[in-house]
Amino acid sequence: MNVESRIHAYRYHESGHALVGMLTPGADPVRKVSIIPRGQALGVTLSTPETDRFSYAQDELLAKIKVALGGRAAERVVFDETTTGAEADIQNLTQIARSMVGRWGMSEAIGAVAVTDGRQDGLLLPGSLPASFPTQQLVDEEVRRIVDGAEHAVIELLTRERTRLDALAHALLEHETLDQPEAYEVAGVEMPKLDATEEAKATASP
Amino acid sequence: MNVESRIHAYRYHESGHALVGMLTPGADPVRKVSIIPRGQALGVTLSTPETDRFSYAQDELLAKIKVALGGRAAERVVFDETTTGAEADIQNLTQIARSMVGRWGMSEAIGAVAVTDGRQDGLLLPGSLPASFPTQQLVDEEVRRIVDGAEHAVIELLTRERTRLDALAHALLEHETLDQPEAYEVAGVEMPKLDATEEAKATASP
Amino acid sequence: MNVESRIHAYRYHESGHALVGMLTPGADPVRKVSIIPRGQALGVTLSTPETDRFSYAQDELLAKIKVALGGRAAERVVFDETTTGAEADIQNLTQIARSMVGRWGMSEAIGAVAVTDGRQDGLLLPGSLPASFPTQQLVDEEVRRIVDGAEHAVIELLTRERTRLDALAHALLEHETLDQPEAYEVAGVEMPKLDATEEAKATASP
Amino acid sequence: MNVESRIHAYRYHESGHALVGMLTPGADPVRKVSIIPRGQALGVTLSTPETDRFSYAQDELLAKIKVALGGRAAERVVFDETTTGAEADIQNLTQIARSMVGRWGMSEAIGAVAVTDGRQDGLLLPGSLPASFPTQQLVDEEVRRIVDGAEHAVIELLTRERTRLDALAHALLEHETLDQPEAYEVAGVEMPKLDATEEAKATASP
Amino acid sequence: MNVESRIHAYRYHESGHALVGMLTPGADPVRKVSIIPRGQALGVTLSTPETDRFSYAQDELLAKIKVALGGRAAERVVFDETTTGAEADIQNLTQIARSMVGRWGMSEAIGAVAVTDGRQDGLLLPGSLPASFPTQQLVDEEVRRIVDGAEHAVIELLTRERTRLDALAHALLEHETLDQPEAYEVAGVEMPKLDATEEAKATASP
Amino acid sequence: MNVESRIHAYRYHESGHALVGMLTPGADPVRKVSIIPRGQALGVTLSTPETDRFSYAQDELLAKIKVALGGRAAERVVFDETTTGAEADIQNLTQIARSMVGRWGMSEAIGAVAVTDGRQDGLLLPGSLPASFPTQQLVDEEVRRIVDGAEHAVIELLTRERTRLDALAHALLEHETLDQPEAYEVAGVEMPKLDATEEAKATASP
Repeated sequence: MNVESRIHAYRYHESGHALVGMLTPGADPVRKVSIIPRGQALGVTLSTPETDRFSYAQDELLAKIKVALGGRAAERVVFDETTTGAEADIQNLTQIARSMVGRWGMSEAIGAVAVTDGRQDGLLLPGSLPASFPTQQLVDEEVRRIVDGAEHAVIELLTRERTRLDALAHALLEHETLDQPEAYEVAGVEMPKLDATEEAKATASP
Repeated sequence: MNVESRIHAYRYHESGHALVGMLTPGADPVRKVSIIPRGQALGVTLSTPETDRFSYAQDELLAKIKVALGGRAAERVVFDETTTGAEADIQNLTQIARSMVGRWGMSEAIGAVAVTDGRQDGLLLPGSLPASFPTQQLVDEEVRRIVDGAEHAVIELLTRERTRLDALAHALLEHETLDQPEAYEVAGVEMPKLDATEEAKATASP
Repeated sequence: MNVESRIHAYRYHESGHALVGMLTPGADPVRKVSIIPRGQALGVTLSTPETDRFSYAQDELLAKIKVALGGRAAERVVFDETTTGAEADIQNLTQIARSMVGRWGMSEAIGAVAVTDGRQDGLLLPGSLPASFPTQQLVDEEVRRIVDGAEHAVIELLTRERTRLDALAHALLEHETLDQPEAYEVAGVEMPKLDATEEAKATASP
Repeated sequence: MNVESRIHAYRYHESGHALVGMLTPGADPVRKVSIIPRGQALGVTLSTPETDRFSYAQDELLAKIKVALGGRAAERVVFDETTTGAEADIQNLTQIARSMVGRWGMSEAIGAVAVTDGRQDGLLLPGSLPASFPTQQLVDEEVRRIVDGAEHAVIELLTRERTRLDALAHALLEHETLDQPEAYEVAGVEMPKLDATEEAKATASP
Repeated sequence: MNVESRIHAYRYHESGHALVGMLTPGADPVRKVSIIPRGQALGVTLSTPETDRFSYAQDELLAKIKVALGGRAAERVVFDETTTGAEADIQNLTQIARSMVGRWGMSEAIGAVAVTDGRQDGLLLPGSLPASFPTQQLVDEEVRRIVDGAEHAVIELLTRERTRLDALAHALLEHETLDQPEAYEVAGVEMPKLDATEEAKATASP
Repeated sequence: MNVESRIHAYRYHESGHALVGMLTPGADPVRKVSIIPRGQALGVTLSTPETDRFSYAQDELLAKIKVALGGRAAERVVFDETTTGAEADIQNLTQIARSMVGRWGMSEAIGAVAVTDGRQDGLLLPGSLPASFPTQQLVDEEVRRIVDGAEHAVIELLTRERTRLDALAHALLEHETLDQPEAYEVAGVEMPKLDATEEAKATASP
């Protein structure tokens, strides 16, 4: 894969994140899409919630997992290829799925029982045993069920909405960075309305 | 879920804790219900025992587990939704259930044998082996049995007592904080009487 | 459970320890029974051996386990209730039972082989593997067998000797603390005689 | 094995790396082949990508694994012998294969789930449990499947292209070090063309 | 068990060690038997080899295990009782048996493979994995086989030689400490002859 | 076993190492055989390669394992006895066999996959998981297969070549140390020729 075709793949990777973010109910609004590298990352799709959040509902977390899968899924749909570029996405979505199952009681198979500790890095202190081996296996199976279901849905979505995906990738070829209104317009998706509350807050800011 | 509907969910979350606390025999009396955020928490239901406690009976611990499940159960009953907001509740009730099984001899399946150490954070020192793997699995199963039974009962209770739950949530919309007499009155539940001993103590205090 | 009934339960808890100590061959003599709280403990039954001990026989260790179970068993026999108050008892008796099996060769199933290390806190250094997993499971099963057998015997004893148990609990209501002669007299149990050796020693002391 | 025959084996080891690098689509171009020892290494085949790389596609990673296997495979094909000289190759290719399976979502059997942490040395912090035991076993099986498939292909390739392999080994006998054009010419393989981009960059450099 | 009967048991415990040491081929000669407590130990049977030793044969190690079991076995044969007094003996003989199996290749089931590390305290560094779980289980089974066989033989020996055992215990009642010639004479066992070499050395010492 | 017969066993132990080293193709030449103790070791058979080595072939490693087994095998063949004196030999050969299987891809059952880390002491950092439990078991089985096969061959060799073994042991009785020409002559084995390269080097040295 030469340099040009790789940059081309990046455009689709970011477009995938963005489009899944626009079309998945419960996902945070897409604020910006860019293929200008930042530090380790090759591009960035910035999705932030409307307001400071204290908690997330199960469907919002599932939406986050789908958005994280969007980059990898776009590469698979368009190029039939999987790359190392999705590593951080996979780590993030795995952490969310494990927390849904092990900290937030969102898996019927595990129930309202804490089976992993709450630290973000997923590490346990030595000797800490939050769950027996069969329970650990059940956690793995539930995580896999959640992620597989999400990936299936995302691949289906991007295949069905290929025209919008191509439009976004093409726009990134010309502009490298799209702000929120541009991104939604290019994709042909209606931009989400602000909450009354937030609009008030936005107005109130100096 | 927009900001307003999220705050609405918080009201039911706290009302769920409070109502389960009022209606479960053995639970500590509810002292205050509030949806004014404090630090990390979005609201608080304050339940304190009548007097300094040295020990708890099995039914009192089960009541604590039910009260902890009350917030999550209210969200499920009213909105059919599970959120990350119950994380601390789940950690607390898991710790109680694990201690019932592993420290306090309250599971017939484990018997009067200590199989977890007593530290509150549930961590073991490295290499510490309080029980073999099959025993750890049995602990998990017993914890699950206790929590599932409690959750089933709480959901049944809140579904049956939906009117009182709505009344509490509505009152929190108007007042944000309810003290003990207000909370019991809004819910239409008789306030628990103080012990003679405690009344004497209360009278004795300056 | 109000304060008064809880204190009532403590009286039976301590009476249970004391009565099992008086009626179990091989148990150390009961020196004092008290329900005056000391530090973390709600009451205390003081049983000390007649003389400095270098070693214990298997039946003496089993007697220690039974005495430790006496408090919990009394609460179950009288109130049909299990409380967190037995936590320290359970830790102690588990430690004795595990040592009988894993350090002192007192289980036919394990034999004269050391399978746990000798530290009192039951902790191993990281990575230390004194026994394979099947052996660890066998240790658990043997510990359970010893403790279950002891608990069965203790509950039978206290049910049969309920009159003496009530007498001790009643006396603690009036006196809060019973010394050795009082406790044995209230329970209607003959006080153990001192060894000739020990008597000599007692006489010899200034 | 005497010194001379061992040096002879090294020539084939390096020639194997080089030839697999030249003939495997997706492999980085071979820049230099040398049997002059450097530090611990007996020889070196330098393969660098055309440009700075941010990510790798699955087929490029598989090519890396094949190139790493090329040295060991040449020794097996030519001398029917396995030596300790491939240790570093085996560590590298194992790390790539484990990352494909556990970090980059490139195994259907594991899916887009992170099951190993991302540190290069493959070590976990104590107590860290990124996956249950059955999942760890599945990772092992997938790693084995990837490596076995690659080794089968590489042995087939070197057996089929034995003439080119002999030519490279013979050239290393005369010259000890071959630069990129020499290596490709000796092997009779067409040298890869530079990207337009890279050529521009190359021209632009002072 | 009163003080006098306990001291009586100690006499048999030490006599058991001593008599097994005298009657087991390959055991080190018994130098002294004493029931005067030293530090933690209640008594001591001192058995030292004839000369500085560099290595031990399998039958000599088995003899050490039997001598270690002699104290516990004497208590079982004479009093049908097991006490905590054998803890140090059990730890020592377990360490020898584990080393025979895991370090010295003396178990056919494990073979000439090192499966435990050589440190005397039997501890491994964290994460150290000298053997898989099935191998650890096999080690346990072999250790058990060695120790059970030795204990069977020792109990048989002491039952058969009860008269000599009684004689030693009786002599310790009168003298508390027996030196080598006294101990062998009391037991009616012929004292082992010194090696010619050692005699020479003994003569040579100032 | 008295002192003299033990020293006699040492002579055969060292003779076993030496004779296996002389008669096993791929083994390093035997430079010296001595029964003069050095530090912890009772004797020494010095085998060094002809030249500095960068890598070893599989048959050379198997030869090292056989030479390490030679001492223990000689004691078994001659005295039908196993002693602790082979501990260091067993540790060394186990380390080689584990590395063949887990680091150098020399077991078909494991393949060209690194499943143990490369540190000489065989220790892993805490939490490090280079392989799942079934793979660890497979490593153990492969190690056992390699070592058992080697031991079988070595015992057969020493039984067949008993005359040479006796000759070496007898020579060590008279001389305590044999240099390379003496050892080969006593054993009646032709001394290996130096490489032309090495001879040149030897000549070149001042």
